[in-house]
Amino acid sequence: MAKRSNKPKTLKEKEGIPAPDFLSSKAAKIVQEKRNKVLSSESLTNGILQGNVTSLSQAITLTESTAKKHSQTAEEIIRACLPHANKSIRIGITGVPGVGKSSFIERFGMLLTSKEKKVAVLAVDPSSSLSKGSILGDKTRMEELVKNPNAYIRPSASGTSLGGVARKTREAIILCEAAGYDVIIIETVGVGQSETAVHSMTDFFLLLKLAGAGDELQGIKRGIMEMADAIAINKADGENRKAAKLAKTEFNRALHLYPAKDNGWTPKTLTCSALQNEGITEIWELISKYITQAKATAYFQQRRNEQNKFWLLQTIESRLKSDFYENPKIKVALEKQIKLLSDGKVTPFQAAERLLKLT
Amino acid sequence: MAKRSNKPKTLKEKEGIPAPDFLSSKAAKIVQEKRNKVLSSESLTNGILQGNVTSLSQAITLTESTAKKHSQTAEEIIRACLPHANKSIRIGITGVPGVGKSSFIERFGMLLTSKEKKVAVLAVDPSSSLSKGSILGDKTRMEELVKNPNAYIRPSASGTSLGGVARKTREAIILCEAAGYDVIIIETVGVGQSETAVHSMTDFFLLLKLAGAGDELQGIKRGIMEMADAIAINKADGENRKAAKLAKTEFNRALHLYPAKDNGWTPKTLTCSALQNEGITEIWELISKYITQAKATAYFQQRRNEQNKFWLLQTIESRLKSDFYENPKIKVALEKQIKLLSDGKVTPFQAAERLLKLT
Repeated sequence: MAKRSNKPKTLKEKEGIPAPDFLSSKAAKIVQEKRNKVLSSESLTNGILQGNVTSLSQAITLTESTAKKHSQTAEEIIRACLPHANKSIRIGITGVPGVGKSSFIERFGMLLTSKEKKVAVLAVDPSSSLSKGSILGDKTRMEELVKNPNAYIRPSASGTSLGGVARKTREAIILCEAAGYDVIIIETVGVGQSETAVHSMTDFFLLLKLAGAGDELQGIKRGIMEMADAIAINKADGENRKAAKLAKTEFNRALHLYPAKDNGWTPKTLTCSALQNEGITEIWELISKYITQAKATAYFQQRRNEQNKFWLLQTIESRLKSDFYENPKIKVALEKQIKLLSDGKVTPFQAAERLLKLT
Repeated sequence: MAKRSNKPKTLKEKEGIPAPDFLSSKAAKIVQEKRNKVLSSESLTNGILQGNVTSLSQAITLTESTAKKHSQTAEEIIRACLPHANKSIRIGITGVPGVGKSSFIERFGMLLTSKEKKVAVLAVDPSSSLSKGSILGDKTRMEELVKNPNAYIRPSASGTSLGGVARKTREAIILCEAAGYDVIIIETVGVGQSETAVHSMTDFFLLLKLAGAGDELQGIKRGIMEMADAIAINKADGENRKAAKLAKTEFNRALHLYPAKDNGWTPKTLTCSALQNEGITEIWELISKYITQAKATAYFQQRRNEQNKFWLLQTIESRLKSDFYENPKIKVALEKQIKLLSDGKVTPFQAAERLLKLT
């Protein structure tokens, strides 16, 4: 028999379910009205500000909805929550599948809640969806954390466009912050473009890696190592301990060859074992130290401002592009120009001029 | 007294000079007509295809001109040259000022011409201009190469927009190839955004570095090392030899920690001394090996096709953006939204929607 979830149903789930048919039509109407009321922006906002998990989940679902009515309500909630947001520490965590992200986040989250922190775990994974997502599997794998009253775990928004998923996640961050979460963890898989997006919405970016086995040469996309504020070599336990230590030395040396970050921070490498619950505290201490330093130099707020501006321009530019490329006239003409281009009959600039003239 | 240049005058220089005043008005008219004829697209194209350096220089100047008449002629020349282009090896060379780029290119160019190759040296440096550019200084520093009949050196196109300079350089590549140059070297300074542009127009990307002196920690922008197909530690001579060898080992180790490139190539580190003319042959051998391998796997042509597509989309997108951001209404509104954003009164997405509605 399938396990029963203790979590309250989200809006999406509720919407799919008709009022129970044992109710009279009058009673059903009352149930429906009550449900509608739950969805008013005011009551949801109040719920969120009181830290109510059901309201939070429903509001996040509203931001993810494509229905106009829902996105209007979501917009109102976000506007009302904004003054209460912006107060958490946002941590991005990435690593290839198999590196042990879920176990790590479970341990890391349990550590934070033991320090009286409220922790929210969100995910950015454009390829997953609520129905078939691997993250749902992850959620059940975080067995302890999922039952912890001070932790909130939310799978990745569905969608295939990274821009869309990233936007929804950023809105979820605001809502979680308004609901009083102190640390927001944004998880992503280290194999796609999503790292740049996650890097641009977090204060600290942690890369999980494995030692040995040629892992250094594969899996992690180019450029991701340069984004990391710290690298943690996971599974540093048992026979793996020695290799992990060696990998740590190697990465520390490699990281030193790279220029320091804007704020003067040189990325650090640590080892840890989620399985043995070792090295997790040290990672949190490192992050705390980084955040303290970043706040002292005003770099923290400055980076958040830059991130906001990045997302503003990003949103504008992706809309300008999609408006252009989704124009049916352009679609046909673009294909033709690309053909001419690969036949060497036109330069990229001539082809561009021709296309731009069509709008 | 200023040295007299042996090079024929370029169009731009000619245009500034009135017909000599010792000529009768009739003779002056003939001179002018002759000059106008020189500028017809047909005669310039013929000159280029015959390898005439004067025609090549004049055509490149036409591509750089902002006058409509000139750019039309340039367009015709490029179209006529295109079927004869695309046959060279394009090598990007970058490194911070002081690394010895000019001396290296001088030696490298002399080596190639000794192997019966015709070499063109172009530069991408948005901050320089013909009048005040440091590259002009470079040109005189390449004393031997500048006199070599099989070498052609052209300073960076002037302009402050990288997009503009990059476009002109790509057009210059086509013209040089049509004029029969076998190797095109594109030089850039390793301190700005221009590396990405140069990387996207070359087949091989060489990063010049110095050993020791904390050079690893400064100067070179993040991400440039990841673009390099090879790193050459220059000035590996005299007392510097040992440090260079050590640096080579360190970089080789660091490069191995990074994922291999799409074509399976792992970047290599070498040492060289332009001063002592050592290690230059080895670098050319490495590049030749890379090119042979890339051509054998069809990666070479595939990458050029991708580069063409990159520049097509790049040109379109930068035009869409500039049309938007240069709209005076947007300029004012954008500033207002950025203010609201940093005050936490609006989300980046709400601000973007508001701005997009204005067009």
